[in-house]
Amino acid sequence: MTERIGYLGPAGTYTEQAALLYAADGALLPYPTINAVGAAVAGGELDAGVVPIENSLEGSVTFTLDLLISQSGLSIRNEVVIPINHYLVAPHGVAADTIRVIYSHPQALAQCRSYLETRFPNAQSEASLSTAAAVSDMQASTLPAAAICPQRATEIYDVAVLDRGIQDNSVNQTRFAVLARNDHRPTGHDRTSICFSFTVDRPGNLYHCIGEFAERNINLVKIESRPTKQALGRYIFLIDCQGHREEPTVAAALDGLRQRVDMFKVLGSYPLWEPANG
Amino acid sequence: MTERIGYLGPAGTYTEQAALLYAADGALLPYPTINAVGAAVAGGELDAGVVPIENSLEGSVTFTLDLLISQSGLSIRNEVVIPINHYLVAPHGVAADTIRVIYSHPQALAQCRSYLETRFPNAQSEASLSTAAAVSDMQASTLPAAAICPQRATEIYDVAVLDRGIQDNSVNQTRFAVLARNDHRPTGHDRTSICFSFTVDRPGNLYHCIGEFAERNINLVKIESRPTKQALGRYIFLIDCQGHREEPTVAAALDGLRQRVDMFKVLGSYPLWEPANG
Repeated sequence: MTERIGYLGPAGTYTEQAALLYAADGALLPYPTINAVGAAVAGGELDAGVVPIENSLEGSVTFTLDLLISQSGLSIRNEVVIPINHYLVAPHGVAADTIRVIYSHPQALAQCRSYLETRFPNAQSEASLSTAAAVSDMQASTLPAAAICPQRATEIYDVAVLDRGIQDNSVNQTRFAVLARNDHRPTGHDRTSICFSFTVDRPGNLYHCIGEFAERNINLVKIESRPTKQALGRYIFLIDCQGHREEPTVAAALDGLRQRVDMFKVLGSYPLWEPANG
Repeated sequence: MTERIGYLGPAGTYTEQAALLYAADGALLPYPTINAVGAAVAGGELDAGVVPIENSLEGSVTFTLDLLISQSGLSIRNEVVIPINHYLVAPHGVAADTIRVIYSHPQALAQCRSYLETRFPNAQSEASLSTAAAVSDMQASTLPAAAICPQRATEIYDVAVLDRGIQDNSVNQTRFAVLARNDHRPTGHDRTSICFSFTVDRPGNLYHCIGEFAERNINLVKIESRPTKQALGRYIFLIDCQGHREEPTVAAALDGLRQRVDMFKVLGSYPLWEPANG
């Protein structure tokens, strides 16, 4: 049966590109917000949902972390990593040297700042709600305009590609989480994401917690904190470790950790993304 | 001599409110971006600069963390914490029940979402570049409009206050960092912020680092990670601990840590904010 896969829309964004790479044969459905994707997965309306979780330049997508912390019935089942490769497009017949306005999502504009300053010193940057919306904003513009968008948008919209790979930093990748009601079975090459918090701050709290991993020789891939939203200076910690929660050493570390903290949640165990998969 | 204090502008924002609370008798100068404030402090154009660093609902301001990591000649000299208390304002003579559009910064709009849905179900929310720009957007609107802004904006602009304290969550505070070329002398009630990273990931790396604090009974207030921007999955860790870097136990912990990591930087030691100061 065809899986129903939601994603943070609209069509033509990097998230749709990640969703296509994950499930080219699924029924892909755009949702307006990360929270809407999460609610639809938890409520059973979708089999899975694809949302951005981390970019190599911008860091974590905090909306996604907060969703995973707060929404019950939601796990990470897979990850997808794609290179961010920005295209510069214009309506057919618009010459590059006449362009006065360049539309894109603020992050994409920021990631191409040097390129734009060098090649288009007289064009004005305008913020759009997404890299796909930038293309429709460009099409609606009364001034000669261009847009910065993913390759996927050039397949959907009838536009001329002026340039590609225009990002200033070539190390630009985004990691997407595939959310589902259950996480993934062990594959031997897995990662586990958890979150936890303490009611009372004591010296060594966090030290003893991550000691549960260190003493079992389990590598921590990532540590992050998010506000509890109950008081300034109170945090929920998020950790990614190597291994699956069903592996005995990981299971023992998680058991040890659970007894040291006041709130604990496994966000999911899932296979590491391998580009060859795509 | 009057200190030259820059802040993330424009005038009328929460950051100006924090700058006024920190140095009511300073010469306050608005700057367009967090990076511009940092560059002007490091370059000697300003004696200090005030920028937001953390909000109790949104978490860290990543632009400020990245500035502290990358800009040399910049330390945290003080912190200022202020409650976020959103005001609803309109041009004089505009009745609340005629309002069709409400302007503010997207974070402020999000923080008042329930209030707006209940009291203004038929008004449209429009994003402005800052809570102060929202007031000028409102004044330029052709439809009957309101704006969500800080108290400070009501002192600068000639507007009618329709309501105050309209944020949905009452636990809404923002912490600001006062940046200067040098940090603060010890006061006995201090915090120290540092950052560090590893060239090679090994199990226990982070554990042994924060052990330098735990074994000396030094409380860690905060731990955060930011991407190195060199590869997905490589991080710079930021830690806030209690105490001043010149206190012997803190100095010993920092020395121990320095020997365990490949990059290490003290971002500053500074007195904890006490509301009575204001």
